[in-house]
Amino acid sequence: MRLQRIDHVGYAVNDLEEAVHYHQRLYGAEVAHRERMDRDGVDEALLAVGDSYIQLLAPTRPDSPVGRFLERHGPGVHHVGYGVADVAATLEDLKELGVRVVDDHPRPGSRGCTVAFLHPKGAMGVLVELVEDPHLSPGSGADHHAG
Amino acid sequence: MRLQRIDHVGYAVNDLEEAVHYHQRLYGAEVAHRERMDRDGVDEALLAVGDSYIQLLAPTRPDSPVGRFLERHGPGVHHVGYGVADVAATLEDLKELGVRVVDDHPRPGSRGCTVAFLHPKGAMGVLVELVEDPHLSPGSGADHHAG
Repeated sequence: MRLQRIDHVGYAVNDLEEAVHYHQRLYGAEVAHRERMDRDGVDEALLAVGDSYIQLLAPTRPDSPVGRFLERHGPGVHHVGYGVADVAATLEDLKELGVRVVDDHPRPGSRGCTVAFLHPKGAMGVLVELVEDPHLSPGSGADHHAG
Repeated sequence: MRLQRIDHVGYAVNDLEEAVHYHQRLYGAEVAHRERMDRDGVDEALLAVGDSYIQLLAPTRPDSPVGRFLERHGPGVHHVGYGVADVAATLEDLKELGVRVVDDHPRPGSRGCTVAFLHPKGAMGVLVELVEDPHLSPGSGADHHAG
């Protein structure tokens, strides 16, 4: 299986602090990472869930992808991030298989990851993000975490 | 963190065979489990992704929860299943904290798991399923998999 693990589930939220507090209060969640991605127009907080994350995403501007998602759908699951060994190779192979993509080439994601989004059209309505995490054994094909 | 791992991401799909074939063709996915849950009105196929699953869900009748979801939203992410050590205890605690639930009591899920759904209202629009998997070390609080 080319998708090695569920890296994260991305939630679109209106208020990042409120969403963090909600998960802390109910589940004792801890924030593993915070980052503002101006390119994507999001403020994110990662909550560790085993070896995966809940990625809380609040828009920094209304015309960002997450801002538009919130306007159309309200809060909810925005996308699913799957760990792959090599984003560039996976993306090329998927394009050859006719998959419609959002990102034609891999690009920087948060946490120093390399990412690419596939298009939900033709992908069962699911916005899929391919995530290559350099902190995990790179290109090994193993799904073990480095630490 | 009370949520120990992402057990699965549940996709609502119109055609189960087509969805399985799509993931086999693009990702080399393998079906780890299939089950028809008449109570929930779904046919499911589980695709292993590391220690988690993509759960493909097709309705067996249009008035089932997944059938109604498809009619309203079209295909996409239907819910997220999180592994917990003890569904009953977690559910009681969450109800005491004021969380709105779909299932007042734990009930049988697929694969012999015990499950309970929380209501997306007040939960940031995300339909959350708590999953206690008896094949993992029960009640240990550890997030290691048994096999």
